[in-house]
Amino acid sequence: MITGVHLIAGNWTNGEHTFSSEPAHGPSHEFAVGTSTHVNAAVEAAENAFENYGWSSRRDRARFLNAIADEIDARGVAITEIGSQETGLPEARLQSECSRTVGQLRLFAEHILKGDYLDLRHDPALLDREPLPRADLRLIQRPLGPVAVFGASNFPLAFSVAGGDTAAALAAGCPVVVKGHSAHPGTGEIVAQAIEVAIKSTGMHPGVFSLVQGGKRDVGTSLVQHPLIRAVGFTGSLGGGRALFDLCARRPEPIPFFGELGSVNPMFLLPAATSARGGEIGSAWSSSLSMGAGQFCTNPGIAVVIDGLDADAFQSAAEAELGAVGEQTMLTDGIADAYRKGTTRIAEGNGVRQVIGTTCDTRHAAPYLFTVSGDDWLADEALQEEVFGPLGIVVLVRDMDQMLRIAKSIQGQLTCTIHHDDEDKAVVQKPADTGAQGRTPSGQQLPDWRRGLRQHGAWRALSRLNQLRGDIGRYLVHSPLSAPRLLSVNSRRIAARSSR
Amino acid sequence: MITGVHLIAGNWTNGEHTFSSEPAHGPSHEFAVGTSTHVNAAVEAAENAFENYGWSSRRDRARFLNAIADEIDARGVAITEIGSQETGLPEARLQSECSRTVGQLRLFAEHILKGDYLDLRHDPALLDREPLPRADLRLIQRPLGPVAVFGASNFPLAFSVAGGDTAAALAAGCPVVVKGHSAHPGTGEIVAQAIEVAIKSTGMHPGVFSLVQGGKRDVGTSLVQHPLIRAVGFTGSLGGGRALFDLCARRPEPIPFFGELGSVNPMFLLPAATSARGGEIGSAWSSSLSMGAGQFCTNPGIAVVIDGLDADAFQSAAEAELGAVGEQTMLTDGIADAYRKGTTRIAEGNGVRQVIGTTCDTRHAAPYLFTVSGDDWLADEALQEEVFGPLGIVVLVRDMDQMLRIAKSIQGQLTCTIHHDDEDKAVVQKPADTGAQGRTPSGQQLPDWRRGLRQHGAWRALSRLNQLRGDIGRYLVHSPLSAPRLLSVNSRRIAARSSR
Repeated sequence: MITGVHLIAGNWTNGEHTFSSEPAHGPSHEFAVGTSTHVNAAVEAAENAFENYGWSSRRDRARFLNAIADEIDARGVAITEIGSQETGLPEARLQSECSRTVGQLRLFAEHILKGDYLDLRHDPALLDREPLPRADLRLIQRPLGPVAVFGASNFPLAFSVAGGDTAAALAAGCPVVVKGHSAHPGTGEIVAQAIEVAIKSTGMHPGVFSLVQGGKRDVGTSLVQHPLIRAVGFTGSLGGGRALFDLCARRPEPIPFFGELGSVNPMFLLPAATSARGGEIGSAWSSSLSMGAGQFCTNPGIAVVIDGLDADAFQSAAEAELGAVGEQTMLTDGIADAYRKGTTRIAEGNGVRQVIGTTCDTRHAAPYLFTVSGDDWLADEALQEEVFGPLGIVVLVRDMDQMLRIAKSIQGQLTCTIHHDDEDKAVVQKPADTGAQGRTPSGQQLPDWRRGLRQHGAWRALSRLNQLRGDIGRYLVHSPLSAPRLLSVNSRRIAARSSR
Repeated sequence: MITGVHLIAGNWTNGEHTFSSEPAHGPSHEFAVGTSTHVNAAVEAAENAFENYGWSSRRDRARFLNAIADEIDARGVAITEIGSQETGLPEARLQSECSRTVGQLRLFAEHILKGDYLDLRHDPALLDREPLPRADLRLIQRPLGPVAVFGASNFPLAFSVAGGDTAAALAAGCPVVVKGHSAHPGTGEIVAQAIEVAIKSTGMHPGVFSLVQGGKRDVGTSLVQHPLIRAVGFTGSLGGGRALFDLCARRPEPIPFFGELGSVNPMFLLPAATSARGGEIGSAWSSSLSMGAGQFCTNPGIAVVIDGLDADAFQSAAEAELGAVGEQTMLTDGIADAYRKGTTRIAEGNGVRQVIGTTCDTRHAAPYLFTVSGDDWLADEALQEEVFGPLGIVVLVRDMDQMLRIAKSIQGQLTCTIHHDDEDKAVVQKPADTGAQGRTPSGQQLPDWRRGLRQHGAWRALSRLNQLRGDIGRYLVHSPLSAPRLLSVNSRRIAARSSR
């Protein structure tokens, strides 16, 4: 049952003000509006909880994570119902996201039981060492303390209240304060109810988890600036993430920011691959672009291809397929509005030609397709910025040199796709570092477009990719300097890939 | 032979201006003053080098690191001579630091050959998976690109031109641009000569390493702000490090900053240990404080003890021993001057009592010992700030509660020492997480003073600690969220510990 209140350290708490949820369909509910007073109470309780939770055994934390998973599972029907109402996403999608969320929690439970992430070292004392004795030395990873988590609009479960960031933090021994996303407060509340029951059944300190609903920007800023908060997990836009990152970096004692931010996920079509199957790639691209109304963070918003007949075949196929895609419901009115503004911004870019475009009202979006020359794209940084929704830009370059320049000029990305066939080898071939003997097949060929391929740097962390193996805990305790990288994506399966 | 020039991508380059080195003894030399033009040339060459070096095999990089080690070894006599002249450190210290530097390079060569740091993953394709097929997925760690390194004043070899940061970056596949420290430009030049010979003998791209000598603040800022620099390694003061960290964080695309910054390395004396051997601890503390004129980053500048007779015994022993320590030569005139200013700043603190203090002229320092109450210490954040040199503050607290408050109020530290005996267990006892089965002895008891014990957060990385096992490469590619922590230092061996 939706009650519309915050969960602050075991207490279901009202606020002075409320806001109304804006579901895509179904009834609206009233929810308490968070304030910095709620944040303060939640963070202080988290700090108190940390005194014990930070020293809890991995076995106890694993039991806790599994209990949360069980309780979410038990609420599957209610979650699917409110989740699809609030987000407009189909029920099947909510069901599979719920399974994923439960799976993540269980993977973290397994992961910490193995204990490798503790990275234990022990150098025994050498009392007779010359010129100086060595003391007994031990090294271990320790949880940092209370962590703030900001959920995503587009993954109301897997990247929200009990999503990957929360699971990673709780697994490591860090209490969590979640700033609930106003796009799906009811879904968040039911998940918080599941966590609360798990806290009670496993005897955890109630301060180990709090959910502060709604609230203006001041709730987020007071959360990341709170002296007792020791790290931040965030999934969302580049602008919003950067603002929070800056607050983390400006603190008297800076704290780490683990963000997954907006990305245009560039796609590069090499000549032989384009010639052999440009049309096929174009159709698959349009499916990727429009899946889920284009609201995936891996949505490949830019396709870079050498201008000419093969590019025409690619573009025609994309145009034909995208033209047949109708209106889709977006996650919120605000996102639909931002999509409309984004399409206008791109359309007004210098040298940009609109190939497909249908304006939609209210909470709906239809696909947009644009083309632009490599020169014009390089001259306008704004064309690099993500437009969240089913929008694609074909960048028509003069030659491979210009394609490489574009690859190098792109900022860190969540994903990058290179379509290449055997005859493209001269362009992409570089000897791979095949790692420790026997751990990977040797002879793998890697492209050298490190800028385009380079993943987000340390300030945009990579929970997404690492979830492929359930090792987020590892990466939430190690922000990468040399960034993890996804190699050799099978280029024939873009659609499958961007659905992750 | 000292020629006084920069090494920019294989070219020994003069500048328009020069500065004179200020050795503690021996002849002064003229050195070129770096400019942002030098920085630019070095970074662009590093970027060019990265096109190949970033894809070099680990075997080739290991050969390169070992060749650098050999070449430094071959210059041991010259390095010791100029190093002791420039820094005033004894020859034996330079010799052992040189061995350490060579050892670090060889450890990194071994480390990358093992390949574990690549963290390779491979999930084979599951084409028949429902509801969607899985693509073939591989994950690997990749080098980020050119890295800027700022060396330390107090470790002219192990934390400078070819020190831990440079070794880690080169091992990972990142070219390096070093901003030379003006306290030991001649030592730096000889090490750069060794690297240059190793570059030639192993056929590396000359842009893989550059040394820009001297220069004002603009050289450092233009280096960390250069768009092609992808990470920064820094060892030095809190103020200087913070300024560079801020520049890294404010870039359009922020880059990671790996710093080891000023630290007061607090020491906590628990009641039973103080009662049993307060005098012994006091004597050992004074050796730690005055070793190397107090110019170690692990120098334990603050001792927290419960006021009373046992504290008196501790303090008297420290006072007796420190009083017998004479003047020592400091690393530079500037450091000696900063030490004098620091002693004055502490002496003027509210409620601070000076126990020992002898003003020294020019480049010399004698020990200072102060006492202050827990109340006064808590009221004055400036008393937390490191004074680089042989200066100790005894913080006399009312009770254990106040000691814990102090532990919690201290910012991230490089080291922390707790002196405790069996009878102190009630205060420090917490069940330890003993990690994966069979990897560490179980039953280890850990103190719960997480704030005081907490190591530097992500913005002050931990190359120092991790060098204990030669795994800096690992940590230079993973800045910690849950910080590595040194456990269970044998409290009877402070002197030995702080010499590391």
